Amino acid sequence: MSTFAPSTEISTNLLKQYQTIRSRSEVLCRPLSKEDYIPQPVPFVSPPKWHLAHTTWFFEAFILEKLQAGYQPFHRDFGFLFNSYYNAVGERLFRADRGNITRPGVDEVYAYRKSVDQAMQDLIEEGSTQQLDTLLTLGLHHEQQHQELLLTDLKYTLAHNPIFPIYQDSFSLVNQENVEAGMLEVDSGIYDIGFEGDGFHYDNERAKHQVYLHRYQISKALVSNGEFLAFISDGGYQRSELWLDEGWSWVQSQGITKPLYWHQVENKWHQYTLSGLRPIIEGEILAHINFYEASAYAEWKSMRLPTEFEWEVASGFLKWGTRWEWTGSSYLPYPGFDKAPGAIGEYNGKFMINQMVLRGSSSATSPGHSRKTYRNFFHPHLGWQCTGIRLASKQIF
Amino acid sequence: MSTFAPSTEISTNLLKQYQTIRSRSEVLCRPLSKEDYIPQPVPFVSPPKWHLAHTTWFFEAFILEKLQAGYQPFHRDFGFLFNSYYNAVGERLFRADRGNITRPGVDEVYAYRKSVDQAMQDLIEEGSTQQLDTLLTLGLHHEQQHQELLLTDLKYTLAHNPIFPIYQDSFSLVNQENVEAGMLEVDSGIYDIGFEGDGFHYDNERAKHQVYLHRYQISKALVSNGEFLAFISDGGYQRSELWLDEGWSWVQSQGITKPLYWHQVENKWHQYTLSGLRPIIEGEILAHINFYEASAYAEWKSMRLPTEFEWEVASGFLKWGTRWEWTGSSYLPYPGFDKAPGAIGEYNGKFMINQMVLRGSSSATSPGHSRKTYRNFFHPHLGWQCTGIRLASKQIF
Amino acid sequence: MSTFAPSTEISTNLLKQYQTIRSRSEVLCRPLSKEDYIPQPVPFVSPPKWHLAHTTWFFEAFILEKLQAGYQPFHRDFGFLFNSYYNAVGERLFRADRGNITRPGVDEVYAYRKSVDQAMQDLIEEGSTQQLDTLLTLGLHHEQQHQELLLTDLKYTLAHNPIFPIYQDSFSLVNQENVEAGMLEVDSGIYDIGFEGDGFHYDNERAKHQVYLHRYQISKALVSNGEFLAFISDGGYQRSELWLDEGWSWVQSQGITKPLYWHQVENKWHQYTLSGLRPIIEGEILAHINFYEASAYAEWKSMRLPTEFEWEVASGFLKWGTRWEWTGSSYLPYPGFDKAPGAIGEYNGKFMINQMVLRGSSSATSPGHSRKTYRNFFHPHLGWQCTGIRLASKQIF
Amino acid sequence: MSTFAPSTEISTNLLKQYQTIRSRSEVLCRPLSKEDYIPQPVPFVSPPKWHLAHTTWFFEAFILEKLQAGYQPFHRDFGFLFNSYYNAVGERLFRADRGNITRPGVDEVYAYRKSVDQAMQDLIEEGSTQQLDTLLTLGLHHEQQHQELLLTDLKYTLAHNPIFPIYQDSFSLVNQENVEAGMLEVDSGIYDIGFEGDGFHYDNERAKHQVYLHRYQISKALVSNGEFLAFISDGGYQRSELWLDEGWSWVQSQGITKPLYWHQVENKWHQYTLSGLRPIIEGEILAHINFYEASAYAEWKSMRLPTEFEWEVASGFLKWGTRWEWTGSSYLPYPGFDKAPGAIGEYNGKFMINQMVLRGSSSATSPGHSRKTYRNFFHPHLGWQCTGIRLASKQIF
Repeated sequence: MSTFAPSTEISTNLLKQYQTIRSRSEVLCRPLSKEDYIPQPVPFVSPPKWHLAHTTWFFEAFILEKLQAGYQPFHRDFGFLFNSYYNAVGERLFRADRGNITRPGVDEVYAYRKSVDQAMQDLIEEGSTQQLDTLLTLGLHHEQQHQELLLTDLKYTLAHNPIFPIYQDSFSLVNQENVEAGMLEVDSGIYDIGFEGDGFHYDNERAKHQVYLHRYQISKALVSNGEFLAFISDGGYQRSELWLDEGWSWVQSQGITKPLYWHQVENKWHQYTLSGLRPIIEGEILAHINFYEASAYAEWKSMRLPTEFEWEVASGFLKWGTRWEWTGSSYLPYPGFDKAPGAIGEYNGKFMINQMVLRGSSSATSPGHSRKTYRNFFHPHLGWQCTGIRLASKQIF
Repeated sequence: MSTFAPSTEISTNLLKQYQTIRSRSEVLCRPLSKEDYIPQPVPFVSPPKWHLAHTTWFFEAFILEKLQAGYQPFHRDFGFLFNSYYNAVGERLFRADRGNITRPGVDEVYAYRKSVDQAMQDLIEEGSTQQLDTLLTLGLHHEQQHQELLLTDLKYTLAHNPIFPIYQDSFSLVNQENVEAGMLEVDSGIYDIGFEGDGFHYDNERAKHQVYLHRYQISKALVSNGEFLAFISDGGYQRSELWLDEGWSWVQSQGITKPLYWHQVENKWHQYTLSGLRPIIEGEILAHINFYEASAYAEWKSMRLPTEFEWEVASGFLKWGTRWEWTGSSYLPYPGFDKAPGAIGEYNGKFMINQMVLRGSSSATSPGHSRKTYRNFFHPHLGWQCTGIRLASKQIF
Repeated sequence: MSTFAPSTEISTNLLKQYQTIRSRSEVLCRPLSKEDYIPQPVPFVSPPKWHLAHTTWFFEAFILEKLQAGYQPFHRDFGFLFNSYYNAVGERLFRADRGNITRPGVDEVYAYRKSVDQAMQDLIEEGSTQQLDTLLTLGLHHEQQHQELLLTDLKYTLAHNPIFPIYQDSFSLVNQENVEAGMLEVDSGIYDIGFEGDGFHYDNERAKHQVYLHRYQISKALVSNGEFLAFISDGGYQRSELWLDEGWSWVQSQGITKPLYWHQVENKWHQYTLSGLRPIIEGEILAHINFYEASAYAEWKSMRLPTEFEWEVASGFLKWGTRWEWTGSSYLPYPGFDKAPGAIGEYNGKFMINQMVLRGSSSATSPGHSRKTYRNFFHPHLGWQCTGIRLASKQIF
Repeated sequence: MSTFAPSTEISTNLLKQYQTIRSRSEVLCRPLSKEDYIPQPVPFVSPPKWHLAHTTWFFEAFILEKLQAGYQPFHRDFGFLFNSYYNAVGERLFRADRGNITRPGVDEVYAYRKSVDQAMQDLIEEGSTQQLDTLLTLGLHHEQQHQELLLTDLKYTLAHNPIFPIYQDSFSLVNQENVEAGMLEVDSGIYDIGFEGDGFHYDNERAKHQVYLHRYQISKALVSNGEFLAFISDGGYQRSELWLDEGWSWVQSQGITKPLYWHQVENKWHQYTLSGLRPIIEGEILAHINFYEASAYAEWKSMRLPTEFEWEVASGFLKWGTRWEWTGSSYLPYPGFDKAPGAIGEYNGKFMINQMVLRGSSSATSPGHSRKTYRNFFHPHLGWQCTGIRLASKQIF
């Protein structure tokens, strides 16, 4: 009998963790009207309703259907409607059609959540197993990732509305100020990179391995709005020599002259935030720039972006966690990387092309969902996440 | 005093008419969930919320702001949000963004309707004038047009959902059967075309004028589903010689093999209707084909589509009113046509290019909103209205 | 024996006509470099080499392979390479790839022409037949149509070159001046329209039929460059109320502010012509405007474009033949129209959608290739033909 | 006087080198017809005429105009016509328009080359300077790069022609066979990477720096046609799990089922080569695959592509030089990289995004234009260079 005690305790912990994280998704949606749950203005942004349902489907498809004998899916079509990109789990809706699906409605999605939560609770209470532990932990981290996307996607959608709606009066993702200054210097040498240990991590953080770094200097502070205003004032968006070729094409073809969500209102710079449109505050940390802008800004300062390895090694001495920081590293597999078989293996590996690594975490990141080995990644033209800039020196010594 | 009596009576009638038509828009929306009010899957389709608000804005912008002294718009941004295509009334939202606007929400749009309806009632009760009469009647016909679009747009949106939602169990737009047969022959001669008289009509129905018609034969019945199935079975969608060149490009580039809303389910033809997915009934009148399909079908039968003039002349002897009937006439101005100055003049004239005329009316048309001189028009590739085919003979005699 | 005499005479005439028209295509190409024969900057424009080969293929595929026993095609792949749009004659090259084919080279295309010309001569000298006559005459008219396209396509291609190359010093297609003035008034009544008689004509000019015309006034002169400059100066390209809705989209999305081939050089209007870039001459007749521009100009003058029927009826009293004149008529079949079976039937009928009729002929039209019943047609956004504007009054009387 | 002797000798060597490389460009064009010099079927491919002129313009713009006092450009518009992507040198032709420019003609381009060659000879004979040396050497390497592109672009263009033209009977770029087998193992450790020394190199090969490599195994042979046929036979192009997500999108959206230039003719695999269409030879080394295909093939073998660092370190023990070998490394700056100021600095640095590094050289590479530190780079979807696959083991030890 004694062997059950620990398992029960683990189960209780798991269940509590499950309920905490799952309920946070719903808390984030409390300020929404039903209408807010629906639109998808561009394919890379998903509606809140879809996030709520997709994260639920993840538990249903990867845990309940596999580990719960006799489990009947809540609705036979939800797999089709709420699968995101897992080719190995069958057909799925065209990504761009997520905003056209009005039924099931919001209430039915909440009922779906409730039903799956109950089935998950039953399963957890039957006792923890290694497989359940692993998949449930993955599902919770998956849900936390979608919580961040839910916020940034929502901001993107609401920002399309010319009346600039307020999500929550007191909730601005982007009002953090820098308190640091100066450069940190790190010696050359062989350093360990990647995750080691028993805690949760994604496959892309493995294997722990060694890299050789040349001596480098990395900035303690992130770039502020005021500093970026100086770049704009100096003609930053008009000077081709500062930009990567594809960045310059982006600037020219889209007519870009300012960061996402910035607006000139009566000759004064404003930005749209989740608490509405308000003036730019120069001391706050710049947000929502894409890799092209980060790269051009660094060039303008005769500096560069740090690599993800330099970032990871220096991270213990840096204050980070308010912006995802663009690095100068492409998103590529670590030595020894191999993806898991089946659908779970589609989580990371297949995206390792044409994307840049971001390190750190942001004010939109869920609590407990950040670590120094975490590798976030986005295409270089995208800036709707809470992204920022940290610089490094060009010289090697 | 006696002069007021008729005016009061007219006002009472006007008000009643106003309330009847306005409330019908809301009745049509009763089966909707709030979520259904939002999406816009393609630019040519608008969300129900937008239809409700846009028709209201029409009364506000063209009547209340002009005729009601001191009228304050319900919301200063609604003109921007809910103007459709009137360049003369200022800036407007990109058409493709109508589905991305979640606020104002559905409740606020109903409040907008209520507020404008009250103001309209006040204005009407002040007494009728020629100008008010004219604009109000136009506004009501405008609302009736949008009622039809609301239904056909809604069908288009719901049809994107792989679970084929039901709008209303008992409501299918497309279940009418033919009871006619044979051909009607009309003699050659000079005929009157276009609207004459005092009743409401659009500017595109004027001026009444004369056309010479050669003797022609026109079918009494519309094409049925069963007849169109024979076209499909005979390889109709694979035979280039039956199609207009642009029609053939449409077929080839889009991979078209069947009418809009038709699906093969377990080797049996079904169609999506507003009361759900159900088997094709061969005796019902074909619906939702575009001009290219209508033209190819006619060619396959060695026949042609009638001109809008032939249709109008024969209409007194035909049973019509369940499908908009594609004619072989392009949408062009009648002799003596001139558009009104200002925004009202943008109603019809500027669309007189690259569109084909449809005559008749459909089961989605609002009560009282059809007449034999009515000229509907759509681009030849579009079939999401309740469109059908009537044939005429190729020979002249 | 006597029965042969007329046939021989006819054959001699036919042969002479064949040689005259065929050699004109080559004369038009004399000023070209070999390089000029190749490019195709946009899909709707074809390279000179292609025109020379395609017109030759027409004689080979529709005459020699059908009427000449044992005829061996010059090259088995030329049917594929030089078929334009005849679906009934088998596979063909993607239209947009015409400019990527460097082999056969120019010399081989001339050898192809020579070989087919010899075979045609042999066939003609065997004696005329009704079928040969008909097909050969069609082939020659077809070649004349391509001669006009060869010039206008060439102009379009050379105009892409920023050094504005000269085709021929003395050859400008667009230097004609108006000598007419005033309006012609035509009475209402029933008029005959369409071709009647034995001469050559296209199937789209038949059947001769009757139309009723209301009394109308039509301008004796075409619009001049100077008159169109006044439209530009009056903000014509910036005033949405003058434009058809699709015309306004064209202006806005393409940033149009002037006619095709016009350039501002040092604050002075110039136009590119086949004899190079030169200043605009105000008295010359406007050329290279599309239907949208023609329609907007007419609206600006509070007038309209004549219908093709009005044009045809008035043509005997008008001076015409320097510009293709946009009419207000869509390109649709005449009463009783039926296309020929097989590939020849693809010549006209399948294009009867979304195109506007032009009447008259232009300075680029081959000698003898114009008549008052001729129906030319182009999409409303295209202006690379030698197109111009004649106006009619809006009022009916 | 003695100081002049070495300079004269250097000048003589420089001149000889100049003439050798310049004349090779023209030798490569000898089999071309004038027509072959013109087309540009897609924007990333340039016409031979453009390559000949652009490489000449490079000497004119970067050397003669800067170092030769009083030098008059051959033609004032050639800078505009033949600048490729140097923003710092002024306006330039849209890249996609290179194939639409027929004048200057081929003869004039050869005259341009002759004129610039003479001026260069004069300048070289005036005596060598450090600046001349540097720029001239860069210009010659630039010309050699374009010689390779000239061949691969030409192949791409001719391959569009359904008659599969022959460039030269005896000239096939892709007929090399493997003679190697087995794997090479390299120990872990810190290795030097990048160019060191006095010879010519591009800025992207600098600075020499250190990387730490884990022990790895790298294949001695490149993948053969026969091996890739096994991948195809095993459903390689139909199995999503083998592909990167963007690679799978490429396969699906383009309907890819085979490498570029491969064709099934009567159920037998053929490939188009510069000496015509001929059967696939299984023992020959695979060519013309893009990064997505290379990556999917490696995944199918449960292996991976080597990094560019692994490749460079192993290169001394490998046979290489017949195919550009895709590596698993993104094209990024080396530590300490800084681009030169002005136009010369646009050569490499601005392309360091979304491209993958290729190492080695190919049978199309000009003599003397390869070295182990050379970093070639292309977007992952492009396979029109002579690209191949070398594998490495996934495991680290």
